[in-house]
Amino acid sequence: MKEISGGVCAPKGFSAGGIRCGIKASFQKKDLALIYSEKTCNAAAMFTKNKVKAASVIVSQENIAGGKLRAIIANSGNANACTGQDGMAAAKRMAQLAADALGIPCTEVAVASTGVIGVPLPVAPIEKNIGALKESLRADELGHSSALEAIMTTDTRKKEIAVEIEIGGKPARIGAMTKGSGMIHPNMATMLTFITTDAAIESAALDSALRLAVAHSFNRMTVDGDTSTNDMVVIMANGTAGNAPVNAAGADYAVFCAALEYVCIMLARKMARDGEGATKLVTVTVTGAASEKNAETLAKSIASSSLVKAACFGADANWGRVLCAMGYAGADFRPEKTDVSFASRAGDVLVCKNGESVVFSEEKAKLVLLEEEIEILVSLHEGDGQASVWGCDLTYDYVKINGDYRS
Amino acid sequence: MKEISGGVCAPKGFSAGGIRCGIKASFQKKDLALIYSEKTCNAAAMFTKNKVKAASVIVSQENIAGGKLRAIIANSGNANACTGQDGMAAAKRMAQLAADALGIPCTEVAVASTGVIGVPLPVAPIEKNIGALKESLRADELGHSSALEAIMTTDTRKKEIAVEIEIGGKPARIGAMTKGSGMIHPNMATMLTFITTDAAIESAALDSALRLAVAHSFNRMTVDGDTSTNDMVVIMANGTAGNAPVNAAGADYAVFCAALEYVCIMLARKMARDGEGATKLVTVTVTGAASEKNAETLAKSIASSSLVKAACFGADANWGRVLCAMGYAGADFRPEKTDVSFASRAGDVLVCKNGESVVFSEEKAKLVLLEEEIEILVSLHEGDGQASVWGCDLTYDYVKINGDYRS
Repeated sequence: MKEISGGVCAPKGFSAGGIRCGIKASFQKKDLALIYSEKTCNAAAMFTKNKVKAASVIVSQENIAGGKLRAIIANSGNANACTGQDGMAAAKRMAQLAADALGIPCTEVAVASTGVIGVPLPVAPIEKNIGALKESLRADELGHSSALEAIMTTDTRKKEIAVEIEIGGKPARIGAMTKGSGMIHPNMATMLTFITTDAAIESAALDSALRLAVAHSFNRMTVDGDTSTNDMVVIMANGTAGNAPVNAAGADYAVFCAALEYVCIMLARKMARDGEGATKLVTVTVTGAASEKNAETLAKSIASSSLVKAACFGADANWGRVLCAMGYAGADFRPEKTDVSFASRAGDVLVCKNGESVVFSEEKAKLVLLEEEIEILVSLHEGDGQASVWGCDLTYDYVKINGDYRS
Repeated sequence: MKEISGGVCAPKGFSAGGIRCGIKASFQKKDLALIYSEKTCNAAAMFTKNKVKAASVIVSQENIAGGKLRAIIANSGNANACTGQDGMAAAKRMAQLAADALGIPCTEVAVASTGVIGVPLPVAPIEKNIGALKESLRADELGHSSALEAIMTTDTRKKEIAVEIEIGGKPARIGAMTKGSGMIHPNMATMLTFITTDAAIESAALDSALRLAVAHSFNRMTVDGDTSTNDMVVIMANGTAGNAPVNAAGADYAVFCAALEYVCIMLARKMARDGEGATKLVTVTVTGAASEKNAETLAKSIASSSLVKAACFGADANWGRVLCAMGYAGADFRPEKTDVSFASRAGDVLVCKNGESVVFSEEKAKLVLLEEEIEILVSLHEGDGQASVWGCDLTYDYVKINGDYRS
């Protein structure tokens, strides 16, 4: 497996584009994106578990039920959530506009929205600009980039990846983009992730591969503990690579799953690093747990703790907060057997052994924690379970960004 | 019932005092407190549910098991948590020192600590100053105040209350102090609450009254979602009021419970208002829920949301975040039947009706939300369940205070 450029346009047979139609208040920012496949794709998707679901989520759930997609239309600047029947009509209209422009059935279009909740989504700017949106489609990296720009909100970085693998002797590619910065927590986020692949893969195998990859990536990431109304991860597989279709029984499935998981983990890391106001990516790894589930629960509790996150911001080796967050996680462990270290490319430093303080250099700990990517390593010495969770620090800027988001 | 002054010294037969012994780094701050009853008290207590428990919690749990107490000794500046066998020895020594100075059994002493985790608690300053601590005891408001000062850490306000009620024709009093500012979440906090009463009340009734009051007060309060290693609420009833002992069957029990709940709710509100960095008390009230439990779960989710808290800081009427936080709370409700209002002494403004936006004045909403005490009112129109939860806003100062707490 190797990383390549091109994002969602790296796999053969896909094009993408993005334009400004006028939903976002800012005059310069793109706000409408389209991803398109020449051929009908096997498709799978996962959606927010929030009981309050955006209209786009409901419409996309209906359309994906058939297991086929050819396009995704997405807007930023308005979440089209808590918008009632008018919101449902607007989401359906978005799908129909894309379908008509592309000459495909509207049931083969997924719809996504991100932005402020509770404000009616204006459809007129989309109607007016649907032709220009179609015209913006390109099968290269520029197409990918403009689509990605058009789904970003408070994101400060482009979060994208593409990889090439070999399946059944044929080169195949997976490409992806994601947006998401705040309101991010396990069970998805104000997160939109669109993945394309030219691998041929059966619907059931695609679905299970996606569920596995999301469980080990986006569902192990947290920015602020808030699960959004609008999240979705969509994958489209158009089979253009020409491999014998992957099914869940074969060896190719493992290859595909590993690549897809890698793609999703890299995006999850990028998303956590770009968490609202974040200055650091914080990876929490718990090893030696009684089970993987235990390790995940403990790691999530640490990565979600406001006090741990604030200490990371301050580069303060306050390991007591790490143990404290484990203590209320609701998972079993023995505090008196627990070791904690902090690590980064500046080195690593053991700060707690068997649940108690050890003598360590505060200067070295500070250097380790001043890095942009830091790790909190917890060893439980109980079993083989382990898990990593990705989060970020809690900063002044998170408060600033979210203190007056709507203005 | 009327509010009176005097705190824990308001009930007859109690004295309190506080001194500086040298545990806290600051040269000016008191750090050692004592509360004492002339007579042996029926006592009840509740402790943190964190799996990582401070040594003081473990020792106090053992001592309270007999149901009798005469004194509480507490230090600030060091949590004596994650400190191993030395920490246990230090906590036991604290109890013994207080017992010896007061001439009472050490099993009648509760021990409490608050401060940084994972640093050995020095016992020498306590040994050296135990005589001065006993000398500081006074049966008036000054005694109460100096004890309260000695348990404060990042607290910026004294949190205290006392009330007078009539039980069985006799005037009786309940007095209390609390500390707690960060690491505060349902199921208790870095919260120490000491309550005294001169009412005569049987042990079982005292215990159940405390559990009820805590469930409706401290367990409905959140600052940052972190449950501390050190929390405890202790109540001591010395019977000096001379009433016929209250038992759980009689009408007096209801009077006592109501007064104790009032005391605990007022302390919980004060604690939320004094949350680390907080500029506002945010009361979230959910009414019309299918059950009280549902209402409580939904209200806690709203009050705990970083995004809602940041919006409160910014006086931003971002009601979409309120619905979003309800959506991931894990409790049933119908978004399409949900109304949301913001209220304060500046008025109230309906911002969401039947799960959708209504036209409202942004100027008025801003005025309402700029107040120091604001309410988020949610009506579900499903049943009679209701609950209020107390929280605060998320501010730059929370991040600042917790970015480098240990320094």
